Formats: sequence, C-alpha cells, structure tokens
Amino acid sequence: MTLGYVGGEVADYQMSAFLMAAYIRGLSFDETAALTAAMVDSGTKLDLSRIDGVKVDKHSTGGVGDKTTLVMVPMLAAIGFKAPKMSGRGLGFTGGTVDKLESIPGFSTSLSLDRFISQITEIGAAIAGQSSKMAPADKMIYALRDVTATVDSIPLISASIMSKKIACGSDFILLDVKVGNGAFMKDIEHARQLAHTMIAIGRNLERKVGAIITDMNQPLGRAVGNALEVREAIETLAGSGPADLTRLCVELTAALVNLADPAYELEEARSNAEAALKSGAALDKFAEIIRAQDGDEGVITNPCLLPVATIVHPVTSEAAGIVCEMDTAGIGRAASALGAGRERKEDAIDPAVGVVIQKKIGDTVAVGDTLAVIHGNDPDRVALAEKIVRDCYKFGSPAGSPQLILERM
Amino acid sequence: MTLGYVGGEVADYQMSAFLMAAYIRGLSFDETAALTAAMVDSGTKLDLSRIDGVKVDKHSTGGVGDKTTLVMVPMLAAIGFKAPKMSGRGLGFTGGTVDKLESIPGFSTSLSLDRFISQITEIGAAIAGQSSKMAPADKMIYALRDVTATVDSIPLISASIMSKKIACGSDFILLDVKVGNGAFMKDIEHARQLAHTMIAIGRNLERKVGAIITDMNQPLGRAVGNALEVREAIETLAGSGPADLTRLCVELTAALVNLADPAYELEEARSNAEAALKSGAALDKFAEIIRAQDGDEGVITNPCLLPVATIVHPVTSEAAGIVCEMDTAGIGRAASALGAGRERKEDAIDPAVGVVIQKKIGDTVAVGDTLAVIHGNDPDRVALAEKIVRDCYKFGSPAGSPQLILERM
Repeated sequence: MTLGYVGGEVADYQMSAFLMAAYIRGLSFDETAALTAAMVDSGTKLDLSRIDGVKVDKHSTGGVGDKTTLVMVPMLAAIGFKAPKMSGRGLGFTGGTVDKLESIPGFSTSLSLDRFISQITEIGAAIAGQSSKMAPADKMIYALRDVTATVDSIPLISASIMSKKIACGSDFILLDVKVGNGAFMKDIEHARQLAHTMIAIGRNLERKVGAIITDMNQPLGRAVGNALEVREAIETLAGSGPADLTRLCVELTAALVNLADPAYELEEARSNAEAALKSGAALDKFAEIIRAQDGDEGVITNPCLLPVATIVHPVTSEAAGIVCEMDTAGIGRAASALGAGRERKEDAIDPAVGVVIQKKIGDTVAVGDTLAVIHGNDPDRVALAEKIVRDCYKFGSPAGSPQLILERM
Repeated sequence: MTLGYVGGEVADYQMSAFLMAAYIRGLSFDETAALTAAMVDSGTKLDLSRIDGVKVDKHSTGGVGDKTTLVMVPMLAAIGFKAPKMSGRGLGFTGGTVDKLESIPGFSTSLSLDRFISQITEIGAAIAGQSSKMAPADKMIYALRDVTATVDSIPLISASIMSKKIACGSDFILLDVKVGNGAFMKDIEHARQLAHTMIAIGRNLERKVGAIITDMNQPLGRAVGNALEVREAIETLAGSGPADLTRLCVELTAALVNLADPAYELEEARSNAEAALKSGAALDKFAEIIRAQDGDEGVITNPCLLPVATIVHPVTSEAAGIVCEMDTAGIGRAASALGAGRERKEDAIDPAVGVVIQKKIGDTVAVGDTLAVIHGNDPDRVALAEKIVRDCYKFGSPAGSPQLILERM
C-alpha cells in the first residue's frame, strides 16, 4: 500500500482514510510491522555489510535538552562498536541533533552514503542528516498526518521511527522512550505501548531492539539550545557534565552494548562506558568525528569557538520555595522563542541562543536566586523567554527529584 | 466544513480522514444534522413557498422492484397534496425512478426549476431528476466515500439522503426504510438506527419526518426492470397490481397524509388512498404527469407502447418444494445483467429488459413450474440471467410469507 502511495497509485485521500482508521482503531503488531517494512522498501536501504564490526544505533523519542546522541556516539565508537547515526532536524519544542552539530564551525552533516560508510569504517562513527532517499514514504505520510489530525497514534509513530532506523541498517537498536511533560508521551502507559510496538516491529523485521523508558519531566542536563548543548556534551565527554546527563549516557550506552553483545554483562558494559569517559577516549573520538566531518575540533578545548550570544541574562526567582514541577515543554518553547528552534521546517535557527537551567526539581530557591540563564541575541525575545521560563517553575512541597530511568524493556 | 470542501478550501485528504473518523466513531445526532445542514447549504435550496398547499415527499432507501414512487406521487396529488419529487438514477442492484420513467416514450425528467414548480402548482405533482445544483457536497462526498471504504455508515447515509430531501423543500417527508437481503440495511436494528437518525436530522432542521420500516427479503411486486415496472405501476394505479405493492403504496400514502395533516386519522387516510386508486383519480393524475412531462400518455391504456424485449424466456424450476428464501439482490443483479441496471454511472441501460417474478416466498413449486419470466434482448445475457434467477430460489420448510410492514416510527 505504501509503495503504491509513493508511486502515486494510492491517492492522498485514500492514505488519509487509512491513517484515520489506524489512528482510531489502532494496528496490530503484524500490521504495524508490515506498514514499517513497506515504508522501508519505499526508498534506499543502507547496506552496512561492507563495514566490519557490530553496528549499533540509538534513538530518542525526543525531549528538551536531550543531547545524548552527541555523547553516546563517540562513547560507542570508543568502546569498539560501529555507530552509524542518521539524525533529523528539530521541530517544535525539541531540538535536532543535526542542528546542534551544525553549530560547530564547518561541521557538515550532509554526507554522501559512500563518505558516511567510509568514515564509519575508519573511525567507527559518523553522524549525518537523514537522507531524503531513505524511507521517503515516512516523510510523505508524516506530512499527511500533520494535516489530518492523525499524528498522535502509537502504531503510526512507531512505524515512522522504525522505518528510518531499519533503513539505516544497524542490527541493534536501543530506543530511549521519553515520558513526561517535555516528551510526546505524557504517561508511562503510553510510553510502554510505544516501546512494545517498536520492539515488536524489530522482532518482525529481524532487528534486535531494546528500549529504556526515561523521565522527561525536566530538561535533561542544564543546556537547552544548539551550541549550548554541544558545549555541555563536550563537558560530559570530558567527565564534568551534569550528573543526570552523564548517568543517562552511561546507562543507555551500557544497555546498547549489552543488547548487541550479551557477553557483556550490564555491569561490565557500564564500567566500559564510564571508562570511555574517564580515559578521554570518548572525547578524543568526538574530536575525530568533528575533524572527519570538516568541523573545527578546536571547540573541544576552546568552547568559545562555538557561536556565542550577545545577551546573557539571568532569570531570577520572584518566589521562594522548593521546585516541585517544571513545564519542560515550556523551557523548550522559551529556547524556540529565542531562535533556537523552528516552528516550521523552513525556519532558520540561531545556533548561539538558548536557556541554561540552574534550578531543577527538588532544588531550594530563595527570592532573587537565578533559576536559569538566557542566552539571546534580541532584547525582545530575551524578555519573552524570561517570562516563559519564570512561568515554567512551580514551587511546592518537595516531591523528590524524578527518577531518571523508569523501565528497561 | 463541507462548504469549505465544496469551495476547495478543505482538501480531499482531509475530508476522507473526517469520513473515516465518522465511519468508525459515528456522529451524534447533532453532528449529523450539522453535516446535513452544511451539505444542504452547499447548493441551491428549492423554495416551494410559491406553491400553495401541503408539500409532501417520500423516499425509499432502495430495494428490488421498488416502484412505489410511480404509484404514490399520483395518489398523493389525487388526494390533494402537493408532491414535488426529485429522484435519482439507479446504481447497482436497485433501480432508479428516473430510469423507469424514461422508458415512457418522450418522458422528460430534466425539468428546469421553474417548470418543476409551475407543474406542481398546476397539477399537484412532478417527478424530475435530482438537479446537480442541489446539495453538490453530497455528490462530492459520496464519490469520496466510494473510494475510501466509508459508504456503509449510518450517519453518512442519513446525511446524504436527508441533504437531498431537505434541499428539495418539502415540509413533510416519509421515509420507507427497507430491510432485508435486497436492501442496503440487512437487519432491523440497523434499519431502526438509520430511521432514527434521519428523523432526528429532520427534527434538528425543522422538517417533519416519519419512517416506516418495510421488508425487502423478496422483490416488491413482480416486475424488476424499467418498462416492466412502469407497466406494473400502471396496473397498480388501475387497481389490478400485485397485492404487496398495492398495500405498501396505500400504507405509505396514508402514513404520509397522516404525518402532514394529523387531522386525517390513519384509518381515514388509508380509505382516501384506496379511494384514489378505486376511483381512477390516481391513474388519471399519472396520465396528467406523463403529459405534462412530454411523455406518451397512451402507455396508460396501451402498455405495448412501452419498450418491449425481443426474448421472453421462462425460468422453470428444477426442484420442487416451497419457496422459503429468495436472494433478492440476486434478482436485481439478474436484471442488471440483462441491461436493466448499470454498474457505473456512465453505463447505458436497456429500458425493455428485466425479470418478472412468478413465485415468491411461501409459494409451492413443482418441477417445471415457471419461477420467473426473463425479458431480454441478448441470448447470452438471457442465459446468464436465467442461471442467476434460478440460483436465487431456495426451497425448504414454509416459514410463511415475510411481514411487509415491520415498524412505524
């Protein structure tokens, strides 16, 4: 059916009727897998067989301040796995890996498939923009879902994600399914369904897929915004990143290593992941990736080579108390309002701007304390972002910091 | 929404997503009425206020051998009501009133709205083809439903029927909802839902709507095919038609009279309806209608002026027993196979051909008895129709003739 759609044999109005039926009635695992397979077959499939080694991939369902890919890909390559990574641009309140990397001067994410494969062969990792030749049906279907109110469907989301992952050719795929007010899945039950569906698709299509459900009720780490996130990723690779981000990168890497090679016990895999950070091997690998993709690797030692905002403005608290809740999507919207994100695909972004969170859930705040620091290039936008960020904080009785790793599947 | 659709502001793919959602989830009475109102507003609404008198309309959901309109419209006019009737052409296994009337030499169903209204003013009745200017949204939506598997939806069927009825302007509408294996509704529960929905739409849009659920588990009357049905309608108007058809026409007419003017008790209305047949007033009215619409009214006294088939072939029974079941849609398909119906809108039809049923449910049949007589113009088609008709009969223990009038709403 999907192939017919890409070829023009199935009209938009028929596909949209199908999508609405799938949205309302759901699809079985087999139907979802069949749809996914058809979407994969609609375009080029990356053949990684030329690359020796174990090819692994990770995917996050998207969150605010989620820069794990920037940390994990070098970690995986440093440990000895092959990490071919194709990423998208950001849309809405979550950022895209491609946008983040492009804040590194010179960094190119437009790699030919040949260059992509030879880079992985040589240094173990590459991060490129998703090729439009891969799973083109996904792009067409997504555009139709967007205008027919059928976006919020677990089987359709699953098929969309998995078609791209499977077209990218890795044998082992770890999914980081985010749940919370900064994620697409708002509750654990839906996150579980999404994870189960994607694992089932993988099983049907002979890929080994694992999933971890992680919290997204507050931004991950502190930085939200492209260059700011690259800087935080470098700090994390250097061993001095925020605890939550560091821990998540270690856990996801360990889980993926364990999935790909069960000879690695989870505990051993975790040690290896931590060692890749402590030894500096992962940071060195990131420098290699930057160099291989025409970027200025000087950013590793001198973050001021990254784009810097002209206005750095603290958001001070007008209230006192313990932070009990954060509107995480709101923080993402504040960064977008500054120019870090885009509302429409064709919008340009400002790599320098964003928000650096100082206070997170469980932190005690006095009046006048800095909640977050805004990096902006336009006073009006900074004022707007300040208002948004301040409104994102809710004070109340300490509920304790949210648990970061919720479920392993 | 519908207006936007007709104007091109809402794309096909959005309308089809809506239709699929309506198909699966259903629509409330209010939603269905709102959709119907939008469909009515998409085109011309007939203004019958220029016509004095009580304007009444009937609609059948379609069945095999259903020529009640040809009998009822003259009856209603003979009784003194105004009967403006717009009808469609046949598609699939049921025939259309317009096709039937066009078998009368010269008869025109393409009337301008002015001519339609002045004819009703003068003689009390007119039967015209549905104007394409009325409820154009219905036509567009139906075409989309046809290619998106959303035809079989009670709210969408109801909105489609009622939009046309309401655009036609009558204040009182009686619905003959057919149920059985020769109707679109296969069971009484669905027929009830359809009737309730259409009555509720009428209530929402300030029309008085009644419904009668009637049996369609065997053809109505004996004739199936255009000229053959006109002939049977004339016989019925002359008082010598089949008992079931005569009774249904009397009951529907009485119900509509009672709905439009409750001063008429149902029993009195029934007497009036019967009197219109016995006195010849209804038959005279039919002659007037034919004359007014350029037809040859000679067909009333000389049915041989209607198109006649060259082959008249009896279907004899190869079995003996009591007819316990008939595949009613099958009889319709046999007539279609002869050329009486069309599979696609653009198909031409042969007015002369069809099937005249001799044995109906409850009749005792001996081997060699004539089950039905085929009227055809092509030996191959006659042979095919013979086979289809014979296969439509099922013999078994007598379950009794099906009840004709099932429920009054």
